[in-house]
Formats: sequence, structure tokens, C-alpha cells
Amino acid sequence: MALESYVVVHNIAKRHNVGTLARSATAFGVSELILVGRRDFNSFGSHGSTTHIRFRHFHSLQDARHFLKEKDCDICGVEITDDAKPINQHPFKKSTAFLLGNEGTGLSAKECEICDFFVYIPQYGGGTASLNVTVAASIVLHHFGVWAGFAERFRDGNKFIVAEKPMKQGRRNYCAETEETIAEERKARRENAANNFFDETGNGNSSSNLLDALFVND
Amino acid sequence: MALESYVVVHNIAKRHNVGTLARSATAFGVSELILVGRRDFNSFGSHGSTTHIRFRHFHSLQDARHFLKEKDCDICGVEITDDAKPINQHPFKKSTAFLLGNEGTGLSAKECEICDFFVYIPQYGGGTASLNVTVAASIVLHHFGVWAGFAERFRDGNKFIVAEKPMKQGRRNYCAETEETIAEERKARRENAANNFFDETGNGNSSSNLLDALFVND
Repeated sequence: MALESYVVVHNIAKRHNVGTLARSATAFGVSELILVGRRDFNSFGSHGSTTHIRFRHFHSLQDARHFLKEKDCDICGVEITDDAKPINQHPFKKSTAFLLGNEGTGLSAKECEICDFFVYIPQYGGGTASLNVTVAASIVLHHFGVWAGFAERFRDGNKFIVAEKPMKQGRRNYCAETEETIAEERKARRENAANNFFDETGNGNSSSNLLDALFVND
Repeated sequence: MALESYVVVHNIAKRHNVGTLARSATAFGVSELILVGRRDFNSFGSHGSTTHIRFRHFHSLQDARHFLKEKDCDICGVEITDDAKPINQHPFKKSTAFLLGNEGTGLSAKECEICDFFVYIPQYGGGTASLNVTVAASIVLHHFGVWAGFAERFRDGNKFIVAEKPMKQGRRNYCAETEETIAEERKARRENAANNFFDETGNGNSSSNLLDALFVND
């Protein structure tokens, strides 16, 4: 079976981080970006790549673990634990989902519980306790792609070629839409508007929450 | 002689990128962050690390090249050129300065001219033509640290230990201050204020340009 990678984000605090994360995830061939708990996000920094990657949502970490184990995925926490392996050693065995911590505090005990193993990124200087969460995720995803031997994308001059049509994103790829979740998303959208989040394209067409991403190609 | 790495940024367009870049640079043991041309920047995203890394400014790319060649550094462009090597192959020989392109267009012909060789980061998916500039830089700096065998920073629990005192930053480490450059910096500061750039500490004490960084420990 072909190797796959997933990114699992649990209650990410800075919603604009999801946009840049999506850009890196699609660059490094990630199959799906899985949001657990909070699921409104902001596409700022994505350079349009949020339409090229599948999003999935689970209410609990256990639900996410169940889904990933059905796919025979290892779950790898990105965290500096005592038994974490340096990422450049490529301690992988099969398809892997990478669980990222909240930016402030890293992975909680509950988050660590669903992980099969941990990787960390060695640091050499004394100026910062940790890396930006998207930077850390990108380094990890890059290494997984190298280890897995993913086929390199075609290039045109000094750019990789962007797929002409965004991936078809049917509603079935996502959490089921109940009236409750739709109301929740609408509330999140209003909050985003109030918080003055905006789309980087500057066309006033904010795609700052999951509902927008859901219906992009419907 | 000990191996060193440098980051060279020429006319970076999004000034807030310099903050996150500084955070990664200090994490990966970079000796100095060299700004060429435009030199006002915003420390947002640095998590305080701008006080832990030396900044240097040159007016021209040739001046920067001269300085780096005096230090027997290779200059490596981070760009997808025809002869660029994948970063994971570690095509390094000695101390290296990494030249990053402007976010929009990559490295210009003039920028490519001062480079001894090029590296690129392989991409596997079709969702984006390129990576965020700070993400790209971080992956490259991480690999250089691994190749150079930099000593790993001590940790305390799940964080790397931040140095107690920021590096001493004397004015001599920077471009000479002429009346002209001071006037220029003041103008930049006013522009920053007008653009509503702000310090991430939120204490109203904006250190969004080089002059502030210069005098941090004076």
C-alpha cells in the first residue's frame, strides 16, 4: 500500500497558522489535514492551497485516533519528549499522522496519550525555546516525504506546477453536517468577521472557515 | 575553523517575515542575519529572538558578498534553478551563507550572480508553487546544522533553554550610523507606525526597526 502522511491539529490557537500549514502540507504531499476540536480557521498564508487539500474534522482525539488506526497509520507527536527521536533520523515505519501541539504549550498529556512515538527538531542556539508551529510541522513533513520517497512534483522554471483544478471536495469527505454544526460554523464566521480576519487575496471574499472550504467546488 | 551559517535577506517584502525568520535562525545556530538594501523590519513572530541574533546591513549585494568571502563562506541561493541540488543531499563544503529571495518572485538574476551554488526543497503535491520564505529558510538552516554537526542546545523538559542574557549588540556590529541613515531609519519608523506594525510583546514599545535593535543593550 502506498505510504501516506496526515497532519492532525488539535485546538490550534492562532487560526492564521492553519493557512500556512495547509500550504506546506500540500507542498509535501499530505493526504489530509485533520482538525480536532476547534475547526474554524483562517486561510491567510495559504496562497490558495486550502482548496487543494482535504480537511476532516473530529470532535475528539479518540475519534481521530480511531480513524487513523483504521488506515493503519502510526500517530507521531511532534514534541520534545524524553524519548523523542531527532527528525533527521527518520524513525518511520509506515503511513504516519503528525500531531501538532497548540502553539503555546506544546502537546498536552491527553494528546501525548494517542501518540505511538515522538519526534523533535534539534536546536543549536539559545535564542528561542521552540520553533513556530508551522515551521516545525514543515520540517517534519519534508523529512517524511524524503523518507517515503514521494514522487517529486513537476516544475516549470523556478516554480513547482500548481494543479489546474483544485481537488474535488465533496461534503462526504468531511464531518457530517447537522443543523447544529452549521449553526456553529455560522457563529464562527461571524466571529471571524468581527475579528477582522481576512482573505489574503484581498478580494473581500473571506474563506476563513470550514464551511467555505467545504463548498468550494460544489 | 568552526563552521558557521549566515542568512542573507535582500529587500524582503513582508517585514513581519523577518521576525519568524530570526526565531528559526537563532534556533538553528545562525551566526548573523544580514539585511541587504531595505533594512527596516518588524519583530512580530520573533518571540524575542531578535535580541539573540546579530544583524548586519549592507547597501549592496556586492558588499555583502565581499564581507562573506572575507570569511571564506560559500554563498548558497535558495531557489529552484536547473542546477539546484535537493537540500536533503547536503551539498555543503564549508561555512555557508543562504540567500533568500523576495517572497513573490524568488531570486533575481542579480541575486543569482553572487551565489556559488543553489539548493531547493523538493515538493510532492500540486497545491502550491512554492513554500513560505521562512518555512523554506528554516528547512535549509535545519539541514545545514545537521550537516555541520552543530552541538545540540540543552533542554529543560519539553523546551530548549533560552540563553539568560541576550547577546551583547554593540553598534560596531552594524552598518555605520551616518546622519543620513539615522534620518532614513526615523522615516521608516514613522512609516511602520503609520502601517500599524506592532511589537508582539504588546507593551507599546515597538522595536520594529533596526535602530531599536541596535540600542537594545547599549
